[in-house]
Order: sequence, then structure tokens, then C-alpha cells
Amino acid sequence: MATIKDIANKLGIAVSTVSKGLNGASDISDEMRQLVLDTAVEMGYASKKMRTSNTRKVCIFIENMDYENVNQFGYEIVVGFKLSAARRHWEVTVVPASLNLQTQEKYDTYMLKNGYSGAFLLGFTLHDDWVKQLATTTVPTVLLDNYIERNNHVGYVGTDNDEGIDLAVDHLHSLGHTKIALLNGSKNSMVSEQRQQAFINSMHKHGLVPDEKLMAYGYYVPDCAKDHLPGFLENGATAIMCASDLIATGVIAEIMKRGLRVPEDVSVVGFDDLPIASQFIPSITTIRQDRTDLGKSAFLLLDGLIHNVTTSKLLLRAKFIKRNSSGVRRN
Amino acid sequence: MATIKDIANKLGIAVSTVSKGLNGASDISDEMRQLVLDTAVEMGYASKKMRTSNTRKVCIFIENMDYENVNQFGYEIVVGFKLSAARRHWEVTVVPASLNLQTQEKYDTYMLKNGYSGAFLLGFTLHDDWVKQLATTTVPTVLLDNYIERNNHVGYVGTDNDEGIDLAVDHLHSLGHTKIALLNGSKNSMVSEQRQQAFINSMHKHGLVPDEKLMAYGYYVPDCAKDHLPGFLENGATAIMCASDLIATGVIAEIMKRGLRVPEDVSVVGFDDLPIASQFIPSITTIRQDRTDLGKSAFLLLDGLIHNVTTSKLLLRAKFIKRNSSGVRRN
Repeated sequence: MATIKDIANKLGIAVSTVSKGLNGASDISDEMRQLVLDTAVEMGYASKKMRTSNTRKVCIFIENMDYENVNQFGYEIVVGFKLSAARRHWEVTVVPASLNLQTQEKYDTYMLKNGYSGAFLLGFTLHDDWVKQLATTTVPTVLLDNYIERNNHVGYVGTDNDEGIDLAVDHLHSLGHTKIALLNGSKNSMVSEQRQQAFINSMHKHGLVPDEKLMAYGYYVPDCAKDHLPGFLENGATAIMCASDLIATGVIAEIMKRGLRVPEDVSVVGFDDLPIASQFIPSITTIRQDRTDLGKSAFLLLDGLIHNVTTSKLLLRAKFIKRNSSGVRRN
Repeated sequence: MATIKDIANKLGIAVSTVSKGLNGASDISDEMRQLVLDTAVEMGYASKKMRTSNTRKVCIFIENMDYENVNQFGYEIVVGFKLSAARRHWEVTVVPASLNLQTQEKYDTYMLKNGYSGAFLLGFTLHDDWVKQLATTTVPTVLLDNYIERNNHVGYVGTDNDEGIDLAVDHLHSLGHTKIALLNGSKNSMVSEQRQQAFINSMHKHGLVPDEKLMAYGYYVPDCAKDHLPGFLENGATAIMCASDLIATGVIAEIMKRGLRVPEDVSVVGFDDLPIASQFIPSITTIRQDRTDLGKSAFLLLDGLIHNVTTSKLLLRAKFIKRNSSGVRRN
């Protein structure tokens, strides 16, 4: 572990200057501060405070995910994380991580500069600058729904998508459906790929044939139903699995627009169990992700990483919830 | 949740008799006690003490795994679990789970009778009676290296075998080896199957061809090397991956018996990083499973399950450790 003295030696400057650079003092130039920070990151420096403090500072970075109110996916995840953190007197800051922020500054530098001991990243994709940097970060980091290979400082928390999708296919198969479509989330996401593969595996397991015309990547918004529903219906789908409840609401609206009924003509299954799933008419059969527990588990994982327990993956069970949007196949 | 009164009503007996049956009082017949216990298990009864007590009683069942001293695989796992449990004032009992015990009594009944709130199972295989019963148990249970589908009361803790095997193949490939053999553990184990698949995937990923004649299931003892090493050498293996360090010691002994050298003629890689791996001559290149952290993680998972955090899988990183049993391919 590099010390302040090591950094000073490497740069050939005074220890006091390094200290100023690390602590954001105003009487050194921006260039010198940046040089000190970059060197500190490169040498794997972590301040004593970051390593040993009882009142740790950590942050939750959120991108592409709504979390402001209880109806949105990220809300309970953040609450769950904060609940666990509060019990340990950790200070949690929620930071919306714009692409701008990510190009402005390297992840490790940002963390060091702000004195964060670790972070939980929500809603990032594999194409994000910071996610790419996670391959080599030394900052304890937990990702929701994304996995980084071979870095002991990074962990992945999520819901068991294989079992979730399998539960849904099982349900639809037991209702007599054979032409089951999958309207997936966006393509650049590990979760979408997992679910696609889980869907194909589960169809085969149930003796059904996954049909390429009945599988599509969309986006996590209701609107994406418009692009894919017509094709699904033309190709004979009697049941549609959606990668989120929001997508399911869009799918149901599109089905109804065509004078068809849910579930009498077409069954629809969602994912997540957001409040909308039980409030919608018809209420939506779905696969529940326990978001509070995802947040709590992310905390446990981050706490472990900070103490060198190198957890790689932590998956929660998916839970099947039967409601009114799915029924026996009639046609 | 069934109450004592529910059980009494169902059996048409007095509440006091049910209470005696559950608490092991001596003034009721063995048959009545068994009937009370069976009914309690069937109705999903858990005593208030099991659910809310601050000083919980849990147990570690061990089968087919040595754990008595620090050189054995189970030792640090048990220590890690006990360390975490002690901090929360849980009482931990280690119970060797013979096949006899498993046929004598159902898992749920045993747990209820002894007042255990949960258990951690080490060394079990999918063929064990109790593991079969875990499909429907309501007792919070954590398994090392075994996964039970669709039961929210059961979790799985282990090491990321995919990454572990991939790290080893990566290493051997970088040393010029192309004919890499795998001497696996016993066949009736989920871990062995995972490693076999991981090996095949990693070979393909490195542009190598996995050869059926260079893959075999053995047992987790040095002796199994005798059966498979001759075939591996005949078929041109220049490197041998072993599913445990103990197997690796057997493989190295067999190689030397033939007048060949390790690593000059054949490279050998182990798995686990038991103390023997660093003490053996030559010291054994291996994939480390952090056993203390496995035990600690099992505790975290069990604690979660008891509080209805339904974790399904928790995987730790595998760590590659270079020692002297692997070297550049020369032939």
C-alpha cells in the first residue's frame, strides 16, 4: 500500500504538497492537484481514513434508472442499501452519474478525491466508461446486474434470472401456451442476454421450440411494445413474457387497442413486481425482484469487499406472482 | 404459521400434550412424540424460540469431508462460520451427518426436535436423503457447493469455479501447453460437473480442443491418480489440472514414479490451496478457495435466510497462485 511519502518521492515534491493535493486545499494549482491525484490512484493509495474510519463514506451512482419515488425500480434498492448502511453508521451519498461525469474524471480518481471507501453502481451498461475502468479498479465496488471478470475488488448483485424466467415459462406452459414470445430489455445489458438465454433454455426444457420471430430486444419503457407486438401476434404468439412490468403495461395496451383481451386472447407476464403490476387492470402476473433485499445484499457485499471478502456474485431468488394477466390458452 | 393450538386441533389432543411432544418431556409415549413432531413439521411449525431468540442454535452438518485439523479442507470453513456466529452470540454445533442419521430421521424433524433455527451443510452430494428433502424444507439451510432449485429457504455458497478453471487454463496456455488434461473430483457432485463444463468452455475460449481421453472423473484423494495418469500420458498430456491439491500430490507422485519431472516434463495445477500445496516439493501451482471466507459467507447467507432475505447463490472469487509445479512446455 503506497503512503503519502511514496507519492511525494515519486513526484519529487514535498509531503505537505501531496497532502494538500489529496485533501483539496486551495493553495496549490489545479494541475498539481490533478498530478497528485493521478499518481495516488496509479500507486494504489487509499487514505487511512478511507481504510479504517468507523463512519465510512460510500456512494451510490445511478444512471439510466428512476429512483425518486416508490413506484420506480431504483427506489427500494436505494432504501434497502441506506437502511443497512445506517445501522453501521456509514454515510451514503446518491450521485447521478452522467456520461459527462464519467468522461470528465476517472472512476478511481473521483473516488479518492471525494474520500469514498466504496460504491454501489445502479443502471450502468457495459459500454459506460466507468464500467470499462472497473476491470482494473482497486476501489471496492458493487454492480447491480453487471459482472466484471477477474477483479477481486468488484462484486455483482442481482436476481436469479434463470430461475425467474423458468418459473414464468413453467406457468405459461401449464396453461397450455406453446407459442410464447419474449419482449426483452435493451440489448447492451448483461441481464437481457441472461434472460434471452434463460428463455431459450427453459423453452427447450419444457419441450417447446423458441422461435426467433417471437424474441426481440426492446427498451425498459412501455412504448417499445409498439414496435414488436404486431410481429408477435402475426406469428401466432398466445403469451408474451416481458422483461419488465412497464413493458408489460405497454404490451397490454397494444393488445387491447386491437380489440383483443388479456388474458382471454393473449396472456402477458411482467418482471420486477413494481407497484404498477398489482394496480394495473388487469393486474399483472409477474416475477418479483425483491428490491429492498437487493439493496441490503449490495451493502453486505460492499462491506465484504472493503474487508477483503472477495465475493464475486450474489443472487437473490426470483418469486413468481400469479395475477390476472395470464390465463388458459383458448385458441 | 401453525401454532401449538393448530397442531393440537389437528390431532384432537390437548395443547399440553403437543407441548410435551415438542419439548422432549418424558411423560408421553415415543409414538405420540413422533406423531406430534411429524405433524408439526408437516404444518410448518417453528417454535417462537427458533424464530426470535437472540441466542440462536444452528448446526453444521458434515459428511464426506475432513475438518479436524488445519490441513484439511473443512477446517477453516467451520472456523470462519463459527467466528461470524460467535460475534452474534449464536450457538453452533458440529454434527457428523452419517447416512444412518439421514435414514433414521427426516431433516425437518431432526431440526425441530433439536431446536435448530438453521443449518450449514458441508460435503453432501445430490444423492443424500437429506439433500433430496431440501427441495421442500422450510428450515433455513445453506449448502456448500450444491444448489437446490426453487426453494426460498435454501441457499448455495461456493467458489466461482468457472473463473477458477479459466485462470488455470489461461496460465497453462500462456506456458505453451495445448494438450491439457483434467482430473476431476467424483462424478456425483455439482461442483465436478461445473468444473468439467468450465474446463471445456475455457479450452474453446483459448482456441484449444478439449480431448475426451484427457478428461476423467476421479475422487478427492491422491490415490485416484493411478487410474488415470497412464492414459493421460499415453495421449500426450503435457499439463494436468486437478480438482484438488490432494489429487495433484498423487498425480505428481505418479509422474515421478515414471522417471518424469514436474514441471520440466509435465506441469500440474491443483485446486483449493490447502497447506500441502505450499509445503509439497515441488510446491503446487493452484487455484485458491478462501475457506474462512466461505464459512463467513455461509453465515451471512444463513442469517439472511432466517430473516427472509432469500439469497439463492453466493460465489467467492477463485484466486490463482503460481508456484513450482507448472512451467513452460518443453516437448
